[in-house]
Amino acid sequence: MGNVIAIITTSVDGYIAAPNDGPGRGLGDNGEPLHNWVFGGPWRYEDDSRGKPSDDDAAWFEDTANKLGAVVCGRNTYEASGHWGDRNPFGVPLFVVTHRPEEQPDSGGFTFINGTDEALGAAIDASAGKDVHVMGGADVIRQTLAAGLATHLTLIVSPLVLGGGKRLFDGFERRLELEQLGARQSRLATFLDYRVS
Amino acid sequence: MGNVIAIITTSVDGYIAAPNDGPGRGLGDNGEPLHNWVFGGPWRYEDDSRGKPSDDDAAWFEDTANKLGAVVCGRNTYEASGHWGDRNPFGVPLFVVTHRPEEQPDSGGFTFINGTDEALGAAIDASAGKDVHVMGGADVIRQTLAAGLATHLTLIVSPLVLGGGKRLFDGFERRLELEQLGARQSRLATFLDYRVS
Repeated sequence: MGNVIAIITTSVDGYIAAPNDGPGRGLGDNGEPLHNWVFGGPWRYEDDSRGKPSDDDAAWFEDTANKLGAVVCGRNTYEASGHWGDRNPFGVPLFVVTHRPEEQPDSGGFTFINGTDEALGAAIDASAGKDVHVMGGADVIRQTLAAGLATHLTLIVSPLVLGGGKRLFDGFERRLELEQLGARQSRLATFLDYRVS
Repeated sequence: MGNVIAIITTSVDGYIAAPNDGPGRGLGDNGEPLHNWVFGGPWRYEDDSRGKPSDDDAAWFEDTANKLGAVVCGRNTYEASGHWGDRNPFGVPLFVVTHRPEEQPDSGGFTFINGTDEALGAAIDASAGKDVHVMGGADVIRQTLAAGLATHLTLIVSPLVLGGGKRLFDGFERRLELEQLGARQSRLATFLDYRVS
């Protein structure tokens, strides 16, 4: 079995989205800089096209893709992304946690599942021994960590203090001892890898 | 003039102390692991003696001390430390922000000052062009950042999720763009250095 990696981008003050995020509002008010590392620099939702990740970040994506077997995300993340243009972009099975699995579209490569545990189980089954990424939202990551189902946590920290928004660890009350696996900085973000004991 | 560096240790979920910290209670309930990097490994307040920082951490302390001109802390930090055994341990002037400056002890090398701005001004004056460290508590760091008085922010992230306690950025509502200056990991903590724009 591969690793189950909770992985998400946060600000230095621990927010995964700026205020007023959500469906049609992406990362919230001026939240785009959180994901500058994904697009090689500043970008805006209203831009016609977006840049590509730059050297170190591109290498990270390639390395990650090679080890990836399945992805789990929450319904809000799916909606906030605009359904990734109605096509699963990950090249591996993607499981969307939702209370309304009957709303799964017939095409696009998305599997809707009720329950984080159930989605994780399905993702592990589908991952062929490769890694499973739990990519958010915050609630799905908190549930995965609280249930002891994540073997790893990767935080990608963007260099800004947002001063508000959706906090990754909001309401999370469990204590977890972590093992440091590395810290690395690209031009646009800092990657912190931990093993969850 | 040197840099004004807000510098503090946090957990991965952004707490600078575990629940129930304070005078006589140090870093709070089982909060000691936050500062494992300071003592070379696990330690407890009730221990008769404490360890020394290990290789990378010791080098960091030495490098930091060489550049240090003055230190600012809040009254709670001063009290929580047990007044550092009634003797300023930093080898440079130490300014304690407090509403009751008249309570300054006659000895020990502590200067009590009313107001974070005033303490920072005094520290800069006393620093002889070297760096000023603002070492906490959280409120003094937030005030320094909110007032635009910090030129740098260094977060020392200990590898644990506390699930509760005193949050560094609690109630902080300003947005700050940061510049990454480096990320480095010792055996016991991750050091993230930022310039505050």
